[in-house]
Amino acid sequence: MDQLYATRASRMKASEIRELLKLLGEPGIISFAGGIPDPNLFPAEAFAEAFQNALGPDQQAQALQYSVSEGYAPLRHWLVGYMRGIGVECDIDNILITSGSQQALDYLGKLFLSPGDTALVGWPTYLGALNAFDAYEPRFDQLSVNGNRGAAEYREAADGSPIKFAYLSADFANPTGETVDLRGREALLDLAEELDCAVIEDGAYQALRYDGDPIPPIMALEQARKGSIENCRTIYCGSFSKTLSPGLRVGWVVGAKPVISQMVLLKQAADLHSSTINQMAVYQVARDCFENHVPMLRRTYAARRDAMLEALAQHMPDGVEWTRPEGGMFIWVTLPKGVNGADLLARALETVKLAFVPGQAFFPDDTGANTIRLSFSNSDEDTIREGIRRLGEVLRA
Amino acid sequence: MDQLYATRASRMKASEIRELLKLLGEPGIISFAGGIPDPNLFPAEAFAEAFQNALGPDQQAQALQYSVSEGYAPLRHWLVGYMRGIGVECDIDNILITSGSQQALDYLGKLFLSPGDTALVGWPTYLGALNAFDAYEPRFDQLSVNGNRGAAEYREAADGSPIKFAYLSADFANPTGETVDLRGREALLDLAEELDCAVIEDGAYQALRYDGDPIPPIMALEQARKGSIENCRTIYCGSFSKTLSPGLRVGWVVGAKPVISQMVLLKQAADLHSSTINQMAVYQVARDCFENHVPMLRRTYAARRDAMLEALAQHMPDGVEWTRPEGGMFIWVTLPKGVNGADLLARALETVKLAFVPGQAFFPDDTGANTIRLSFSNSDEDTIREGIRRLGEVLRA
Repeated sequence: MDQLYATRASRMKASEIRELLKLLGEPGIISFAGGIPDPNLFPAEAFAEAFQNALGPDQQAQALQYSVSEGYAPLRHWLVGYMRGIGVECDIDNILITSGSQQALDYLGKLFLSPGDTALVGWPTYLGALNAFDAYEPRFDQLSVNGNRGAAEYREAADGSPIKFAYLSADFANPTGETVDLRGREALLDLAEELDCAVIEDGAYQALRYDGDPIPPIMALEQARKGSIENCRTIYCGSFSKTLSPGLRVGWVVGAKPVISQMVLLKQAADLHSSTINQMAVYQVARDCFENHVPMLRRTYAARRDAMLEALAQHMPDGVEWTRPEGGMFIWVTLPKGVNGADLLARALETVKLAFVPGQAFFPDDTGANTIRLSFSNSDEDTIREGIRRLGEVLRA
Repeated sequence: MDQLYATRASRMKASEIRELLKLLGEPGIISFAGGIPDPNLFPAEAFAEAFQNALGPDQQAQALQYSVSEGYAPLRHWLVGYMRGIGVECDIDNILITSGSQQALDYLGKLFLSPGDTALVGWPTYLGALNAFDAYEPRFDQLSVNGNRGAAEYREAADGSPIKFAYLSADFANPTGETVDLRGREALLDLAEELDCAVIEDGAYQALRYDGDPIPPIMALEQARKGSIENCRTIYCGSFSKTLSPGLRVGWVVGAKPVISQMVLLKQAADLHSSTINQMAVYQVARDCFENHVPMLRRTYAARRDAMLEALAQHMPDGVEWTRPEGGMFIWVTLPKGVNGADLLARALETVKLAFVPGQAFFPDDTGANTIRLSFSNSDEDTIREGIRRLGEVLRA
């Protein structure tokens, strides 16, 4: 029976990230691998109160019952205000609640991609996006955000395959930590107009800026051009995973109403709706705590980023380069040519008990062998300094 | 940009069930429409305690964090015992936790179906299954469980299209309430062998048997033939939605390890994992309460079924027929030829404030216009008697 189902799933690489998550519990290991929030920073008490309220006499019948595919209306209302705060005017019919922003990526792949269609993605880009889109068998082409490829060049590379969307995370992207500047965002919108394709803006890290001036989301820039969200080709994916809790699986997607209503149908067919009680709990915690909680996260993660940058400057041998992110969870390290990130990981685990993610997995074309991703979100400063010291040691060995 | 995404979602009918759910809140309406559990019967206190535990100092860091795609190991262990109790021997690597059994249907569609492939389904069958599979653009053919179609006939009807699976709910199926007898189950396994296709057994209502002798799941019968689950072509989908709570979106799928490991990859790509905290809460409530809670549900729902059957006998005019389910939530009513269920619903809502689901939506070929589905799970006996009296009134009018 194997030949029956060895179609879509078999093309996906077993994710190195997931395998690495299994290492996190081992004693003595310093892990810069998982791009995960520090569990000590979760607003656990606020969630305990929110779940208690949801399961109190007034709300329990609702909290434990089926609910509509669009999502919990008070949470969508809160998100209308949140999106306004980052420059996007929308109403609740422009918002669908998803089970993490990962699910929005899956549904967008399902909505847009037929086998052989072209998706433009960063080189490297978020591995989870590649996995989500891969299920729909597209071709990937390299999205350039510095404007050095014109529409004609993309079309030529697509060779007749329809170019369906450009996907990117514009702020502190996973895995590089890099941010697309205002000019790059405007150029991307110009490109999308010329190609008549959608833009999928992954805002997973958007709230975690530590310094520098905020840059409006691509969706806000497009709305400024076009007046209404209904005229926008940008679709924005947001997540509470990096700000409140990933374990509840609550994210959202914002788009023109025809896109959102199609996605509601996809969600209804795929899992009916996201957990009712989790949406109610996230709503209460977002309403009561987001404003104070997120600045605390920013201060904490900023200090960890600074510790990692300082330690890199101190311990990296010549020929190693790295990014200086203004937010998010990641620093991207480029090793000297010929040094293989996967080999380095194997050596680091064995000799100095250090974990990180080899960068190659983030490239659709399996280049990038001499890169690694370091996450600074889940270690305190002392651990970060010691981990980077170990990285220096194994690189010099 | 419309033409870019008007592919998969647009083929799905906007679900009548979902639209009807929106009516449930209106005053004075008696609804036999939604196939939903009675929220007064939820084990809300047990869930309150379980969420409190999960958010206590020992478990909060885990409960709110990312977790593995396969699902929470203690819950999968509990399910190994549950499956053993219904005749299926498996271990935890045969089990994936999904966000409701609906998600398992979506992933099975994704795993098995390419456009034009054939899926065998009941006529009528669960609308959510048709919606889930529809996204992958199969042909549907009518599965007969009374053995009056042989493999050659299915092959001829498929006309070269690969027959990938037969999907059915063998116990108290949605929408008919009917159960496939032992002989029908064995015949289906014979057919699947001849066609070399999978069998997707939807066990959503399996625990809700009110009388009659339990019949082993199709998966148990196949295991009895073949010795090991690893040789089985049956894939079993289970759900806590009908026994504990649908609002938490926790279900599971059981199959041979190669199938489950492919589905784990699909899940990882589609939404990473189901809510960690919800899996922990469901585990605690299942462990502590399932054994006492489900018999209480059976007693309560059995009394409601009986009330509906008695009221139907009293109030239905000649020429109306209905099923006598041994469990589940539904009675299926066949109206005299020429009476249209959708028209009847419109009249019933307007004149007697009664809601139910017209049966046509459950037929892949849009036949069944003279059928309706009544759910008895979410109304007390007096309401059921009054509702069926109203149905008689509108049918006679």
